[in-house]
Amino acid sequence: MKTEALLFDVFGTVVDWRTSVAEQCAAVLPGSVDSFAFADRWRSLYQPSMEQVRCGAREFTRLDVLHLESLRVVLSEFGVDLPESTIVELNRVWHRLTPWPDSIDGLTRLKSRFIVAPLSNGNVSLLLDMAKNAGLPWDAILGAEPVRAYKPTPESYLRTADILGLQPHQCMLVAAHNDDLAAARDCGFDTAFVCRPTEHGAHQSSNLGPTSDWTYSTGSISELADRLNC
Amino acid sequence: MKTEALLFDVFGTVVDWRTSVAEQCAAVLPGSVDSFAFADRWRSLYQPSMEQVRCGAREFTRLDVLHLESLRVVLSEFGVDLPESTIVELNRVWHRLTPWPDSIDGLTRLKSRFIVAPLSNGNVSLLLDMAKNAGLPWDAILGAEPVRAYKPTPESYLRTADILGLQPHQCMLVAAHNDDLAAARDCGFDTAFVCRPTEHGAHQSSNLGPTSDWTYSTGSISELADRLNC
Repeated sequence: MKTEALLFDVFGTVVDWRTSVAEQCAAVLPGSVDSFAFADRWRSLYQPSMEQVRCGAREFTRLDVLHLESLRVVLSEFGVDLPESTIVELNRVWHRLTPWPDSIDGLTRLKSRFIVAPLSNGNVSLLLDMAKNAGLPWDAILGAEPVRAYKPTPESYLRTADILGLQPHQCMLVAAHNDDLAAARDCGFDTAFVCRPTEHGAHQSSNLGPTSDWTYSTGSISELADRLNC
Repeated sequence: MKTEALLFDVFGTVVDWRTSVAEQCAAVLPGSVDSFAFADRWRSLYQPSMEQVRCGAREFTRLDVLHLESLRVVLSEFGVDLPESTIVELNRVWHRLTPWPDSIDGLTRLKSRFIVAPLSNGNVSLLLDMAKNAGLPWDAILGAEPVRAYKPTPESYLRTADILGLQPHQCMLVAAHNDDLAAARDCGFDTAFVCRPTEHGAHQSSNLGPTSDWTYSTGSISELADRLNC
């Protein structure tokens, strides 16, 4: 097996961000606010917020800061007024997301044979707090912040391989999102699709299956561990 | 307890680099070479090699590269000619250093209450391979490479705290070297001295005890865990 490192997308692939964010928002927001609609709207600003960095209009800015800016927009749109300290604390829901049921089992088994690390757009502190809170057994915390480049830019994948002292073909991206996998494969990574059909709720319409012949296509991280004989 | 993260010097504090390097060199070098003298000379080029980066004469260069350059110098000084592939492999001895007997116990216990991570001049791949090989239970792999600054520059400590989303006073440097602790304290870190009286062999003359009133002074990482009620 030439693969040395399994690098994981996190939001949606390893953790159920939508349920976690909605439930924690519900505890803070007025009862009149649909917390799932709030979570969905917050998340909808995620890609646009990174686009300014990706296109070079803004220097690298960690996701905690982008999340906070987006949160202020969404609170305004929903007509919710909260104390500043509550807003700052609410922004930290992304540090406390709940793993899918198979994530810890799968990662623990895969760790026995491979380097396992996040390759997420989340910043180091976010990913580290999440791991400590949920028990995710990462070997290292990698991703956009150490390499100062957001996915799906080529730099995000290539610099991560370089930090590991590996060639791209020794790395495999594991993700629930076909576009992330396509960008990683363009950089020479192997690819593993993990289907997460309820990431966006019961009526999800995208990423319901693999759209290409990825190296592996599985229904869970545990199944990926099975396939890799871990 | 205000401390959130315990950040560890690694070479000498967590691992016994000298014995590990000497033993692995002995397996490769001609029998006529004193492998401890070889290890000591190699290590003596460590600080000068980083100084070019620290003073700005050279862009940030990871320690694996500096180690390899130093290794070529030492091989030449000792009159040893090795195949290129053997030299490259020999350079990786720094990825396979053996922990002091108390390191894994102490780190495992401290991890239950604190973030534990290296704040080493070693590069990410070196520290990650070492951790996988030896079972060091780091929460994240930090240090010079992610922040592109070698200790003891202030940037190395301050940017590490920043990556963690922490204030300097929420971080504690744990090290066997008084000068490292002094630099960290100047940046606002708490400090813990761990005495490693044989890091440089039986005749070590420096760092045999604390030279200042560090926050803690202990004889092992396990003792630090005791002191911090872990």
